[in-house]
Amino acid sequence: MKLLRWGPKGAEKPGMLDASGGVRDLSGTLGDLAGDALTPASLDRLRGIDPANLPLVDAPRLGACLSRVPTFHAIGLNYGLHADESGMAHPKEPIVFSKASSCLAGPNDPLTIPKDSVKTDWECELGVVIGQVTEHVSEAEALSRVAGYCVVNDVSEREWQQERGGQWVKGKSAPGFGPTGPWLVTADEIPDPQALRIWLTLNGGEGKQDSNTSDMIFSVAEIISYLSRFMRLVPGDLICTGTPSGVGMGMKPQRFLRPGDVLELGVEGLGSQRQEAVAFSG
Amino acid sequence: MKLLRWGPKGAEKPGMLDASGGVRDLSGTLGDLAGDALTPASLDRLRGIDPANLPLVDAPRLGACLSRVPTFHAIGLNYGLHADESGMAHPKEPIVFSKASSCLAGPNDPLTIPKDSVKTDWECELGVVIGQVTEHVSEAEALSRVAGYCVVNDVSEREWQQERGGQWVKGKSAPGFGPTGPWLVTADEIPDPQALRIWLTLNGGEGKQDSNTSDMIFSVAEIISYLSRFMRLVPGDLICTGTPSGVGMGMKPQRFLRPGDVLELGVEGLGSQRQEAVAFSG
Repeated sequence: MKLLRWGPKGAEKPGMLDASGGVRDLSGTLGDLAGDALTPASLDRLRGIDPANLPLVDAPRLGACLSRVPTFHAIGLNYGLHADESGMAHPKEPIVFSKASSCLAGPNDPLTIPKDSVKTDWECELGVVIGQVTEHVSEAEALSRVAGYCVVNDVSEREWQQERGGQWVKGKSAPGFGPTGPWLVTADEIPDPQALRIWLTLNGGEGKQDSNTSDMIFSVAEIISYLSRFMRLVPGDLICTGTPSGVGMGMKPQRFLRPGDVLELGVEGLGSQRQEAVAFSG
Repeated sequence: MKLLRWGPKGAEKPGMLDASGGVRDLSGTLGDLAGDALTPASLDRLRGIDPANLPLVDAPRLGACLSRVPTFHAIGLNYGLHADESGMAHPKEPIVFSKASSCLAGPNDPLTIPKDSVKTDWECELGVVIGQVTEHVSEAEALSRVAGYCVVNDVSEREWQQERGGQWVKGKSAPGFGPTGPWLVTADEIPDPQALRIWLTLNGGEGKQDSNTSDMIFSVAEIISYLSRFMRLVPGDLICTGTPSGVGMGMKPQRFLRPGDVLELGVEGLGSQRQEAVAFSG
């Protein structure tokens, strides 16, 4: 099942993809895609709906496939080659940070380069959406707590993240820095989250990022189990699980986003995103 | 105006304090204290209500005075003596980090020392609640974006925060690590947030923390203006603004929480909290 949110920015409604790839309106059934709408009971109820019986929506804008994310978690340096290109040691434990939930954006929205930014960079990631309250879960049980998966671009301002003192959240949270979607693919359709191609291109050229989730240092199950020892995960929490090598910061010379640049990115089975970078306009 | 949430954990309703300190039920008027309920228009509407006309609730449990916090922001090392006791340099820019919103708790709930924790510590702080979408706001305009203020205990596990690699969020987010309230005091009642006594005692003894918000390195207005350059603040966001000296980590010898310890803490004009530390019980 592929769940999504569609409509104008700030007024999105829930939807569901039909067998032909058409967007169907779920707003008669569901308030929004958030929190308790993502529990196993709620997803089971949605599975009972035949999309063909829902109103078809003609080519709408897609919003982030999640709303009201309680905490937008993220994992740093979780692919070995990306840690190398960042000049950082391979972590012994998952590097946990977070993004402000206000940075969530539609998968194809223009990506605004923030005011005063000089180092806006891309990071294609596998996003994991939690479906149950989770504390102290074992690795063996961890994947049972996942509602589904989605593509996330963990957009990052490197100067703000690394050169201004303090913690990474400051460079990870600008408006639009969390394109999420196009859809939330429920976990039953992704039998192995560690076997998915993950890729990103800049301006249609050759791959800047091209890897596989099999290259993660800490697996999705390990990340969920680890996080759950330190905090309570709740339905609707989003975890982006780290990016492979090929970010702009790691290129020689370094290459950061400029207005007009086009990013395309995706994860196998989860669809793709497209963002055009635009200048800040106030 | 003093707004609050009351009732059993997970099923809190909104409320309002009356002139005698009694809790009045606002649930006939308001869904919850979150997001758009905190905008200027919503607060103006609530100001038109006479608490005496609302049902009186007899001595209920108080929940966190906010729900569905979009992002729980925090500022580190914002009082000079606390930076000194932490063995860290005074920051040149505000140190921004975050807490998982799932750590919010009622002001008087028992405080569970997490499983495997050895260094659970206290931090009494002035909490600031945002009432308007805010980006790139000047310091001069910043306080106009505040819905109100509250007491926050920014409970911290020092080993997880500082000795396990990665970012602070991991040591700041355990269940119950964000007691918030007893009430949200609207900004009109706090003409100067930089002139409030802030205090905490352990086991009723002499003050472990006793300072004034005038000692902040970065003022509330500076913090809001600074954050708004890096991210979009939204109604319901909570910012805790740093703690003064007197935390357990800074004592000689260090003193961390043990089951049975009782914390009492408060900020002038915002009420007080009381937490008894209890052992993790699964």
